[in-house]
Amino acid sequence: MIGPHRDPARLLPADPATRAVALALYERVAGAPIISPHGHVPPSLLLRDEPYTDPVALLVTGDHYVTRLLHASGVDLGELVVDDTAGRDARTLWRTLASHWHRFAGTASGYWIEEELDGVFGVTTPFGPDTADAIYDEIAVALTRPEFRPRALFERFGIEFLATTDDPLDDLSEHAALAGSDLGGRVAPTFRPDRYLDPEAIGFAGNVDRLLAATGRPGDFAGYLGALEERRAHFIRHGAVSADHGVEELFTVDLEAGEGERLFQAVIAGRADAAQQRAFRGHMLVQMARMSVDDGLVMTIHPGVHRNHSSATLGRFGPDTGHDIPVATEFTRGIRPLLERYGLERDFHLVLFAVDETTYSRELAPLAGFYPSVYLGAPWWFLDAPDAIARHRASVTETAGFYRSSGFIDDTRAFLSIPARHDTARRVDAGFLARLVAEGRVRLPAAEQIIDDLVGAIPREVFKL
Amino acid sequence: MIGPHRDPARLLPADPATRAVALALYERVAGAPIISPHGHVPPSLLLRDEPYTDPVALLVTGDHYVTRLLHASGVDLGELVVDDTAGRDARTLWRTLASHWHRFAGTASGYWIEEELDGVFGVTTPFGPDTADAIYDEIAVALTRPEFRPRALFERFGIEFLATTDDPLDDLSEHAALAGSDLGGRVAPTFRPDRYLDPEAIGFAGNVDRLLAATGRPGDFAGYLGALEERRAHFIRHGAVSADHGVEELFTVDLEAGEGERLFQAVIAGRADAAQQRAFRGHMLVQMARMSVDDGLVMTIHPGVHRNHSSATLGRFGPDTGHDIPVATEFTRGIRPLLERYGLERDFHLVLFAVDETTYSRELAPLAGFYPSVYLGAPWWFLDAPDAIARHRASVTETAGFYRSSGFIDDTRAFLSIPARHDTARRVDAGFLARLVAEGRVRLPAAEQIIDDLVGAIPREVFKL
Amino acid sequence: MIGPHRDPARLLPADPATRAVALALYERVAGAPIISPHGHVPPSLLLRDEPYTDPVALLVTGDHYVTRLLHASGVDLGELVVDDTAGRDARTLWRTLASHWHRFAGTASGYWIEEELDGVFGVTTPFGPDTADAIYDEIAVALTRPEFRPRALFERFGIEFLATTDDPLDDLSEHAALAGSDLGGRVAPTFRPDRYLDPEAIGFAGNVDRLLAATGRPGDFAGYLGALEERRAHFIRHGAVSADHGVEELFTVDLEAGEGERLFQAVIAGRADAAQQRAFRGHMLVQMARMSVDDGLVMTIHPGVHRNHSSATLGRFGPDTGHDIPVATEFTRGIRPLLERYGLERDFHLVLFAVDETTYSRELAPLAGFYPSVYLGAPWWFLDAPDAIARHRASVTETAGFYRSSGFIDDTRAFLSIPARHDTARRVDAGFLARLVAEGRVRLPAAEQIIDDLVGAIPREVFKL
Repeated sequence: MIGPHRDPARLLPADPATRAVALALYERVAGAPIISPHGHVPPSLLLRDEPYTDPVALLVTGDHYVTRLLHASGVDLGELVVDDTAGRDARTLWRTLASHWHRFAGTASGYWIEEELDGVFGVTTPFGPDTADAIYDEIAVALTRPEFRPRALFERFGIEFLATTDDPLDDLSEHAALAGSDLGGRVAPTFRPDRYLDPEAIGFAGNVDRLLAATGRPGDFAGYLGALEERRAHFIRHGAVSADHGVEELFTVDLEAGEGERLFQAVIAGRADAAQQRAFRGHMLVQMARMSVDDGLVMTIHPGVHRNHSSATLGRFGPDTGHDIPVATEFTRGIRPLLERYGLERDFHLVLFAVDETTYSRELAPLAGFYPSVYLGAPWWFLDAPDAIARHRASVTETAGFYRSSGFIDDTRAFLSIPARHDTARRVDAGFLARLVAEGRVRLPAAEQIIDDLVGAIPREVFKL
Repeated sequence: MIGPHRDPARLLPADPATRAVALALYERVAGAPIISPHGHVPPSLLLRDEPYTDPVALLVTGDHYVTRLLHASGVDLGELVVDDTAGRDARTLWRTLASHWHRFAGTASGYWIEEELDGVFGVTTPFGPDTADAIYDEIAVALTRPEFRPRALFERFGIEFLATTDDPLDDLSEHAALAGSDLGGRVAPTFRPDRYLDPEAIGFAGNVDRLLAATGRPGDFAGYLGALEERRAHFIRHGAVSADHGVEELFTVDLEAGEGERLFQAVIAGRADAAQQRAFRGHMLVQMARMSVDDGLVMTIHPGVHRNHSSATLGRFGPDTGHDIPVATEFTRGIRPLLERYGLERDFHLVLFAVDETTYSRELAPLAGFYPSVYLGAPWWFLDAPDAIARHRASVTETAGFYRSSGFIDDTRAFLSIPARHDTARRVDAGFLARLVAEGRVRLPAAEQIIDDLVGAIPREVFKL
Repeated sequence: MIGPHRDPARLLPADPATRAVALALYERVAGAPIISPHGHVPPSLLLRDEPYTDPVALLVTGDHYVTRLLHASGVDLGELVVDDTAGRDARTLWRTLASHWHRFAGTASGYWIEEELDGVFGVTTPFGPDTADAIYDEIAVALTRPEFRPRALFERFGIEFLATTDDPLDDLSEHAALAGSDLGGRVAPTFRPDRYLDPEAIGFAGNVDRLLAATGRPGDFAGYLGALEERRAHFIRHGAVSADHGVEELFTVDLEAGEGERLFQAVIAGRADAAQQRAFRGHMLVQMARMSVDDGLVMTIHPGVHRNHSSATLGRFGPDTGHDIPVATEFTRGIRPLLERYGLERDFHLVLFAVDETTYSRELAPLAGFYPSVYLGAPWWFLDAPDAIARHRASVTETAGFYRSSGFIDDTRAFLSIPARHDTARRVDAGFLARLVAEGRVRLPAAEQIIDDLVGAIPREVFKL
């Protein structure tokens, strides 16, 4: 389905004997359904099912992986917004992308877009300044056809399960409507409560007020926890399988109830100092683990990102505009209080992601290789690219094997890139397995079972599907 | 001797021309004697020379690499103990291993066990649920034969030198008895004084009391140091070549004698705060370096592991049960006070190990590439696996070459895995060297000399054998 | 020009199909002019144009990459100085190098020297104890010939641009004389003000006094800043394109003018504590960025090195004698204050180097992939070796592409090694690109354009040549 005009062995090892094994492994799973247990596609996209307006809306403006590199190349983010009064129509922006296309060579974003042009639209000419207009026209025509609307693409992509990411106070009516529709696949919400848990989040106190008001809970710590539990239950009733947490530092601390109450009152009143804010955040991760033990939602943590690095850009264009930058991350000590409390619980699933590769072999594989609750999150964000995925497997497998990893997660709001991203992971995993076969480390039948499980049984088990 | 039924080119690079060079290099050293200068095999195993009771005792229950991954897979550690009253005989546990065997694919432990099944027992069928019983029987029969007793295996494995790890108060009578026996190889003790040096070690004050009592020394710092020196001398008389130190943080500090005395009294009295405990530990590393300069024992340091991460598991099953987890490690500043004092001493040998790969190119290779006393420890613990060993060579060689590394160290208590582990290192080194030859960076005769030295001259020089 | 007697495909991937592509890519740029925008060759070398006295002066004593590994191998640095009264002539030292030559196998230094022996002198026999004398004679004879003088080599090497590194108070008369000579290439100074910016630098207060005296400025913060600006202008008039900064910790802080003045007075008076010294250093980096915005000098930062690790060696032999050791480096938070102020400025170029590989994918590629001012410095110091360069490309390209990197920088005072170092980078880049071609990720014409740009358009753009 993906990229019929491209090299069928792309991303696979160059050595001919290894490549042959890799290709055979890849072909077993090339057409397997897509399980996407974490991502950022808005449910409205699939509910409204409106045609994409143009190639730029489809491939450029919504994808901050793309706009960030254009920005680095000297293009002001303000110039990447269609504005007819300023003479900037979609075609102009498309040409801007094309004129900088050489800068995307070797990048994950460049690879995905080329995959999409071929795989989704059947474009067979290389994209660039000379071909930009013709390709624009080709896509624009396609977008007027019903088979290029979001729901048709969803089914053509073979998506079996797609998780969105949602605010705890979302009524999930869009998810309910989707569940009641004839969409050929399941769309589930994900509980993402950061802005209600982090005292430093913009509007934190007001967020908590709204949470308490929406659930009719009293303004104490017990009421607050009860409100969160109630909203989790609401999510579970709408099909949610996981709760996701984004933190800059992975710090957890287990506190007595009285201390939790005191911290809660301090952070709500805005009189908590930095250490108290940190303690509150750290304790709330333990509380969320406790709730996961109670209600069964898989707990996923995405730590280690310094958000909104450029204040000027945040001010002009808002968050999620390409300037979140990773920082060194520590897991072994930071997650310990949480694991001391819940790490050996039978049905607790905790998926740890990282944007700091140094933690793969040093901390994550050793943790996932002992604690039955801990799963190795797939390579994430800047690291879900071919070489980075390969480095991840090479770093963790010797300690933790394949069955302590989460399966691939695309984490994307760029809907059209979902198949290309999963295909990339499948190819790289096939190449990695083929090398183990070529080196006499894994027998071919075992490798075949593993590649099948990596796209099926493993994510189903980890995310309780 | 190892794995005659397996792919003779296993672990070697897939590219045919490179593989041919690698195979030729490997074959030079495939049968070379094993020098194992650091490990945890109990001397009693070789002294008593009792038959192994069953395949599980041999391959599973004593190897926390294996039990930890079973634990992560949902098997309670308590279920991995043979208990006839609970209906759990060895065969049952063997079947448990078999039913989870797919989870070991790609792991170092899985590779070693497959090597052992073939190389030691000649098992030719792949291990798994369907073959577990037959293989169990095959091994059980073999274990009744004299050539599968520990001493026979020791000689069959071609072990020339094997270091154990021992408590400073051990009388080393087992080592004396072994030295007086006709064992075809040398078994030497290693001085491992952590529990007498770390104020936070369980029973620290009592340990020091016993040390002072055993040597008849007074209860001051000088008496304490003298006691340690005396026990080191005892070890040297019994053939020891090194003293080994395990610390979570690599911190050293050089103090005046008076300050050492004050800290000693504080830690013994249990009134030292965390900073004083740290200073004492850090100073004792410098003292141990001083003793190594004086008595010639090679100093080895294994830093960067958070021991006993799961308190519940520690409480139920004790230490060394699979939940020691690495942490980020710093060498450059931490080891500096020790090196300022002794780093340029002529016959001082300091071998630095790491479980944090980031230190390889950043700190360890630069340190070993300048200080004549510093040697790069071989990849250790979670990192003594094929890909990790290859990453180590690639990270350090361009700065420090081959002759500043320690040679391979198996660090294992799983006696049967020793040949498989050394064979793995030999294969990976051969593959690494073959790549350098294929890339025109090292001439073949030089590569041949290097592979010979890596298993012979280098460990002999580093460990003063 | 380089190494005609060596394997023409050295450093290229072993897979035959990939190697063929790599060789074709390499051959496009093998003879391209050398652009060396950062290094440590003294301008006097080219101005005086004196013959090298002997092979040891040429290849050993001036290169602390070489002497450090000899030192680690047990050779006292004092023995590496020619001293006729001690019976140590150059030939003796050359034999010392030869007797330890096996220790350089696999190192970058070893590779470069072998490249130089063949590429510069046409030596066709492998260097070693048996051939050392003959090779010594061969080189010694060559050095008497005019084509082996520095200026002739400069032109033979095809150096188009060479930056030196200079003290801010240097009158740059040597550069002026070089500019007025008929040298077939441009030699430019680089403004390196560390000793005037770091309160912990040896002689800091005296350095500042000299700076103020030389420029006739008053002894306040404004006078100090004005003096630095004036010297930068002097450098720009003499062709400088960049200002370079070496710091152990990458810390920046933006302060109000009054606070800057207070800190300046404190550090000059020697009454600043460690926190104030750090703040001053951090603020001066921001001030230097401000000056770069104003005067257009490219700002380069080389952080993360603990200088002069061995006090005894520093005392005996001075700085830059092989015992500078890297430390873990943080960029995301440390550089943020500087980028908040100037990161989006149009013509500001900031090149960030690192000796901590963990920052490549985690911090540097994400920063360079967003900020138009930030460029990824080439692998530096211990990392400008074949495998390390390949790891760098693999770590950063998927996020930032090729066009956010700086192009290769040799950073060397070993003049003869310049072609070998640039050739190494060209080969490794060709191999990396060939793999992307072989894996269907980059089309061949795009790869051809990229390799051309990596040695031409990219360094010219980054360094404003």
